[in-house]
Amino acid sequence: MTAAKPLTRPLAPGAAIGILGGGQLGRMLAMAAARLGFRTHIYSDEEDAPAFQVADRRCHAPYLKRSMLEEFAKSVEVATFEFENVPEAAATILGQHVPVAPLPQALAVAQDRLLERKFLGGLGITTAQFKSIGNEGQIEDAFSVLGGPAILKTSRLGYDGKGQKRVRTAAEARAAFAEFNGVPCLLESVVDFAFEASVIAARGRDGSFVAYDPPENEHGDHILRRSTVPSRLTHAQIDEAKAIARKIAEALDYVGVLCVELFVTKDGKLLVNEIAPRVHNSGHWTIDACLTSQFEQHIRAIAGWPLGDAKRHSDAVMENIIGDGVNNWLKLAGEPAGLHLYGKKEARPGRKMGHITRLSPLGTLKRK
Amino acid sequence: MTAAKPLTRPLAPGAAIGILGGGQLGRMLAMAAARLGFRTHIYSDEEDAPAFQVADRRCHAPYLKRSMLEEFAKSVEVATFEFENVPEAAATILGQHVPVAPLPQALAVAQDRLLERKFLGGLGITTAQFKSIGNEGQIEDAFSVLGGPAILKTSRLGYDGKGQKRVRTAAEARAAFAEFNGVPCLLESVVDFAFEASVIAARGRDGSFVAYDPPENEHGDHILRRSTVPSRLTHAQIDEAKAIARKIAEALDYVGVLCVELFVTKDGKLLVNEIAPRVHNSGHWTIDACLTSQFEQHIRAIAGWPLGDAKRHSDAVMENIIGDGVNNWLKLAGEPAGLHLYGKKEARPGRKMGHITRLSPLGTLKRK
Repeated sequence: MTAAKPLTRPLAPGAAIGILGGGQLGRMLAMAAARLGFRTHIYSDEEDAPAFQVADRRCHAPYLKRSMLEEFAKSVEVATFEFENVPEAAATILGQHVPVAPLPQALAVAQDRLLERKFLGGLGITTAQFKSIGNEGQIEDAFSVLGGPAILKTSRLGYDGKGQKRVRTAAEARAAFAEFNGVPCLLESVVDFAFEASVIAARGRDGSFVAYDPPENEHGDHILRRSTVPSRLTHAQIDEAKAIARKIAEALDYVGVLCVELFVTKDGKLLVNEIAPRVHNSGHWTIDACLTSQFEQHIRAIAGWPLGDAKRHSDAVMENIIGDGVNNWLKLAGEPAGLHLYGKKEARPGRKMGHITRLSPLGTLKRK
Repeated sequence: MTAAKPLTRPLAPGAAIGILGGGQLGRMLAMAAARLGFRTHIYSDEEDAPAFQVADRRCHAPYLKRSMLEEFAKSVEVATFEFENVPEAAATILGQHVPVAPLPQALAVAQDRLLERKFLGGLGITTAQFKSIGNEGQIEDAFSVLGGPAILKTSRLGYDGKGQKRVRTAAEARAAFAEFNGVPCLLESVVDFAFEASVIAARGRDGSFVAYDPPENEHGDHILRRSTVPSRLTHAQIDEAKAIARKIAEALDYVGVLCVELFVTKDGKLLVNEIAPRVHNSGHWTIDACLTSQFEQHIRAIAGWPLGDAKRHSDAVMENIIGDGVNNWLKLAGEPAGLHLYGKKEARPGRKMGHITRLSPLGTLKRK
């Protein structure tokens, strides 16, 4: 089977856009698409997917059910995905019938940390020092090169700290490797960073590129807690961060929004932590602080529209509402802030239930 | 049958909100409700209603089909309407099963110009001079009191210039009255205004009240073309305009967003033109220029939530995209502006297809 023809002209309002994945990212993408007059069809294996609640059509089926994927593909004019752990094969099947953006190759790279490191290395982009671990025998040597403490990460299917373990000794690394059932891993030096940041950028079908002002990110228990713009990055670092994102986007022939997570070291270096080939939690503040949100930007890119303005009109602090933190909704609703709740029924520990963005006039936010 | 109990506590996220009417106002209300984690059920007599595309559940039926209204009412925890020409009886039937906000009495007042004038007069609020016309015989006298030119308006079912005719002589007024099939009308003096403005305000279930900065409005062919904030109103006029809106909202025991349209005379007086008991086209700029849009504000009010911040972060000019103006979507998409398209298939002349909001930093917009 041959791949679908690429989109040759901008998608007209009223067209249907397919989104693989029905979580909060799909939900906010669907709302951004609706704002531009598009219809959205959501495909999710979750029965009561948050994105279903705001979509024109819903498809509830396993991600690898070919007949359903084909039917779904035929009902839309372009397809995208909300999350990199949607199986690459599903995106590939869709791509046989309908233009898919970003290209499934971006999924492939982002789903596999070792492939991602190879890709970044090939572009001359710096990451934390690491060694690939294919078997237990490689751990001792890797540890002696990197020194401890280090982090053992599974190469595939990691997010929000899943598939990661901090280890102080080679013995701990071996135990963690066994715990991960001996799947391919990488052992990574712990970066003694000053802070974390990310670039949210978009690349259009015509190669146009825009990047938002990079937020500074704070994590807790491996989950993003807070993103703040402006960050403590210098102007030169902001330019460098955007240039890194652009280089990655161009190398992947990327179409859509991508996020590049960065460590900023104490001596001012930028190390790429990972690439997310999608809209990203650290870009949620763009809904309230920019005329064009990251979600609309992604829809514009995949629809072949001109990219929107990525300028901020305000300073912003976005905080995630996690697990039973959502029970504070009434208190949060009383704040002069942008409150976003995702329509999820169960507030499981660690589950992202919503976020809140507090704005202040441009240039007034004081950093610690 | 007794009326449903009023809402006694704030509606929890995840609850379903029913919206009677499925046009662009219902669509933007549904999106605002989803942002806060609510589900929306839309009831519309239109098969492919724009709001259906973003709603959790849809009900396509005539507005006065009691069995469907009852089923709809049972599926939601609170109901509202998007447009004052939804039959009052439909809102009343819903109100027998579920709390409805605003109260159907607000619909009744806003659907009938003569009732509205009586209501406003009772509050000591000034409008254009008018005479009620119940039969052809009253036209001559009314004309001699008011002088020409004047406008003959049907008392019921008018919007966007429908049911209105400008008349220069009593003979023209008689012809217009006959054209309106002799339904109850009012003959109104033409106000020689300096400009038009409106107040978009919200009143909560607890009597709390907020009002947005009143926009200045420009009409063409009786359809709103452009709303601009800031307007040319003085600070004193802004206070007066907000006080008028508050007085109206309190007299109606209003819950939700309402709009009061105003004429600003050359000698600085504010005359109320009409009341819209709903979110309003002249408030669409609040989506892009405020943290809390008029749509979210309405949802907050009817859900018993605290009202949101009505402050602007930017100056704004909102322009409607009307009829085949929507064919310029690609050019409009290239502007650094907030583009909103309503998902309507047919671009009929005079039909509101979308709007675009251009922002500039607060305090920088220069008025002519």
